[in-house]
Amino acid sequence: MRTTVAIIGAGPAGLLLARLLHRAGVDCVVLEARDRAYVERRQRAGMLEQGAADVLRECGAGGRLDREGLVHRGFELRFEGEAHRVDLPSLTGGRTVTLYPQTEVVKDLIALQLAEGPPLLFGARVVAVEKTDGEQPLVRFVTEEPGGRDGPERAGGPERTLECEYVAGCDGSYGASRRALPPGAVRMHARTYPYSWLGILADVAPSSDELLLAGHERGFALHSMRTPALSRLYIQVPNGTSPGDWPDDRIWDELDVRLAAGDWRLQRGPVLTKSVSGLRSQVIEPMRHGRLLLAGDAAHIVPPSAAKGLNLAFGDVVTMARAFTHWHRSGSTSLIDRYSDNCLRRVWQAQAFSHEMTTLLHTPPGADAYDRAMQLTRLRRLTGPTAAAAELAENYAGAPLI
Amino acid sequence: MRTTVAIIGAGPAGLLLARLLHRAGVDCVVLEARDRAYVERRQRAGMLEQGAADVLRECGAGGRLDREGLVHRGFELRFEGEAHRVDLPSLTGGRTVTLYPQTEVVKDLIALQLAEGPPLLFGARVVAVEKTDGEQPLVRFVTEEPGGRDGPERAGGPERTLECEYVAGCDGSYGASRRALPPGAVRMHARTYPYSWLGILADVAPSSDELLLAGHERGFALHSMRTPALSRLYIQVPNGTSPGDWPDDRIWDELDVRLAAGDWRLQRGPVLTKSVSGLRSQVIEPMRHGRLLLAGDAAHIVPPSAAKGLNLAFGDVVTMARAFTHWHRSGSTSLIDRYSDNCLRRVWQAQAFSHEMTTLLHTPPGADAYDRAMQLTRLRRLTGPTAAAAELAENYAGAPLI
Repeated sequence: MRTTVAIIGAGPAGLLLARLLHRAGVDCVVLEARDRAYVERRQRAGMLEQGAADVLRECGAGGRLDREGLVHRGFELRFEGEAHRVDLPSLTGGRTVTLYPQTEVVKDLIALQLAEGPPLLFGARVVAVEKTDGEQPLVRFVTEEPGGRDGPERAGGPERTLECEYVAGCDGSYGASRRALPPGAVRMHARTYPYSWLGILADVAPSSDELLLAGHERGFALHSMRTPALSRLYIQVPNGTSPGDWPDDRIWDELDVRLAAGDWRLQRGPVLTKSVSGLRSQVIEPMRHGRLLLAGDAAHIVPPSAAKGLNLAFGDVVTMARAFTHWHRSGSTSLIDRYSDNCLRRVWQAQAFSHEMTTLLHTPPGADAYDRAMQLTRLRRLTGPTAAAAELAENYAGAPLI
Repeated sequence: MRTTVAIIGAGPAGLLLARLLHRAGVDCVVLEARDRAYVERRQRAGMLEQGAADVLRECGAGGRLDREGLVHRGFELRFEGEAHRVDLPSLTGGRTVTLYPQTEVVKDLIALQLAEGPPLLFGARVVAVEKTDGEQPLVRFVTEEPGGRDGPERAGGPERTLECEYVAGCDGSYGASRRALPPGAVRMHARTYPYSWLGILADVAPSSDELLLAGHERGFALHSMRTPALSRLYIQVPNGTSPGDWPDDRIWDELDVRLAAGDWRLQRGPVLTKSVSGLRSQVIEPMRHGRLLLAGDAAHIVPPSAAKGLNLAFGDVVTMARAFTHWHRSGSTSLIDRYSDNCLRRVWQAQAFSHEMTTLLHTPPGADAYDRAMQLTRLRRLTGPTAAAAELAENYAGAPLI
C-alpha cells in the first residue's frame, strides 16, 4: 500500500487533515486503531472557536454544525456571589464561539470521508512508524476485528505496510506516533496541576444558555451543556479523589454553593455519568521529527479550563495541510520546515492562556488570604471596562485559522 | 499641643497629605523622627505616574518637577536579544510617566511646607500612638538633637504630647504607626520573592533615554537613570548575595549580557554606590484602625519591578485628604469609613501588576524550559498588537488620582 501522507488517528485532527488534503488533491490514507462505533462515541469537549467552525464550513462539514451547534456570544465569570458576563462580540469585533460536541464533529467528518474519500481504515492498529529520517517512511499496522482489540485475539490480521512520503501523527498522547520518536529527538515539557475535575453529565436542561465559570474560594466550578437537554457540570476536587466519594446530592450541593449568584437557581436532574480527570500541560518541541509531523494531542495537551484542545488541533492540521499542499504543488519544503515553529507560537499562547484561566479560577492546596485577594483582583480587573477584558475575550474567542 | 490630623512621617506620603490638608483648611502637624538633611538624602525610586505628577502640580509643587523631570513616553522590554518598545501615549490615550527622584519630591514639598505651613517637626520621634479607639487619639513623641538618634544620647528631649482627632500613619513599614496597631486588629498579608536586586548608581550618562527592562534567561536587568548624568542599573541576584561578591566589572559584564539588543551598547562609568535589596509584598488589611489611618509603606509594600510604591502612597493620601476634608466640612465620616476599601482596590491592583511584572521578567531558582517558554510567550504577547499590550501600558502609566 502506498500513499503520499499517512495519517495516524481518526480523531478530529486526523479527519480534518484528511479532508483538507483531499480537497487540495494530496493523496492520503487514514489509519485508526479503533472501530467506527468506538470513535464516534469518544466523548470530549466541544467549544469551537469561530476560526475552527469556519474551517469546518470551508471544507463542507458545516451543515449540521450550523443547524445544531449552539452559538455562544459570551460567558459568565462568577465570584463573590456575583455574575459578570463577558460579551465576546463587543470585545472582539464580532467574534463568537460555537458549542458543538466533538463526537458530532467526528461523525460529520467520518460520514463525509466514507462518502467522498480518501481511504479510512478502522481497526488498523499501527505497530511501528519507521524510516522517518529518510525519504520513504513506512507505517506498519495490523488490521483487527471490530471490538477485538482488548481480548487475547488482540493481534488480529497479518501485519501490513503503508509506504508514504510523510506521516501525520494525529493519534493522541498515548499513540504510536509519539512512541516512534527516537529517544532525545524531541524535548517534552510537562506539568501537572495540584487539583482535578469531577465532571457529571446530567439529564436536565442547562440552567443557563451560556457557560458559567466560577472562581469560588472552595474551588472552581463550571456549568456547561452537551445539548439543549443535557447539562455538563464540573467541580474542582483534590487529586486522588474517587468519584465514589461524591454522591449525586453532594455534587449538586457543591455546585449550588460555588455557582451561586443572585437569585439564579441550578436545576438538578439524574446524573448519567460521573468521572474524575487530572489537569495537565504537555508540549513536544519540535512538533516534527524528520518526515513525522505531530498534530493535536500527539503534540501537546492543555488543561481543559479554556477549552483550547480541539481548537489547537485544528490549528495544527490547517498549518500542516497548507505545508503539504505547498510542497505537493511546488516541491518546496519551506512550509514543512517551518511547521513546528508556526504551530508552537499558537500552542504556547494557548498553554499560557489555559494556565492563566486555570490559576485564575482554581484554589490551590494551601492557598491563603493573599492568594485569594490576588485572584479576586485579577477577576475584578478582567470583568471591568479594561484592556484586560478585551485580552480575555480575544484569547477565548481565538484568532482566525484561515 | 493640639491639632486636627497628626501626620507621622515626612516622607512623600506625609508631606503630600499635609500639603493637601493645608490647602483644604484642615489643621495638621507633621512629626518626623529624622532630621531634614537625612530625609532629603533618603534615596528611593522616582517614576511618577501621570496622576501622581498631576497631584504635585495641583498643589503647587510642580515647578521644578516640570523643569527637571524627565517625561518618559515609553519603555523597552528586552528579551532574546531584541528590544520591543512599549509606547505609552498611543496605548493609553496620551498618558506618560515622569522620572523625578523621590529625594527631589521630598525637597520640594519640605521647602513649600516650611515656607507656607503647616508645622513640620524634624527629630520628633514618636514613641506611642494611643487612644486610637476613642475620639481623641494621642501621639507621644520625644524631640531629639539632629543626628543624635543612633548614639547613647538616643532619648533626647523630654516627652511631648500631640492631641488630635485623627492620626495619619505615613512612617513606613518599620514605623511607630504599625507598632501602634493592637494585636489582631488588622491582617497582614506578606510574600517574599526568591531573588534580590543588586543595584548600582554609576557616574555615567544613561545609555538610553527610556527605561530598559530585560527578561533574560540569566535573570532580570533594568537600565534606568537618576538624572541625565547618572545611570541607575539593577540585576537580579540570588537572595543572600553580598555586594562584595560582585566587583564592578562583573556587574557591567552581566548587564551587557542581559540588556543586549542589536548593536546597542551600554556605557560604563565609575560605580558610586552598590547595594542588594530583597523583593517583598505586604498588605495590611484594613488600612485603618479606629482613628489611625495608614498610608504608603506603612500600609503596603510592593516589589519595585513596576515602580508603584510612590504612586500608591500618593493614591492613599489623595483618598485620605478627600475623606478628612469631607468630614471637616460636613461632619460626615462616610469617606473616612470607606477609606480602606477605596484604597485597597488600587493597592491590590498594584500588587497584582507588580507581581506580574516581577514574574514576567525574573528567572526563579529551578526554572526549567517550560517556565522559560511560558515567560517568552507572555513577553511576546505583551509586545504584539494585542489588548495585552494596552493592559500593560494602562497599568504602567496608571489611572488618574484626581
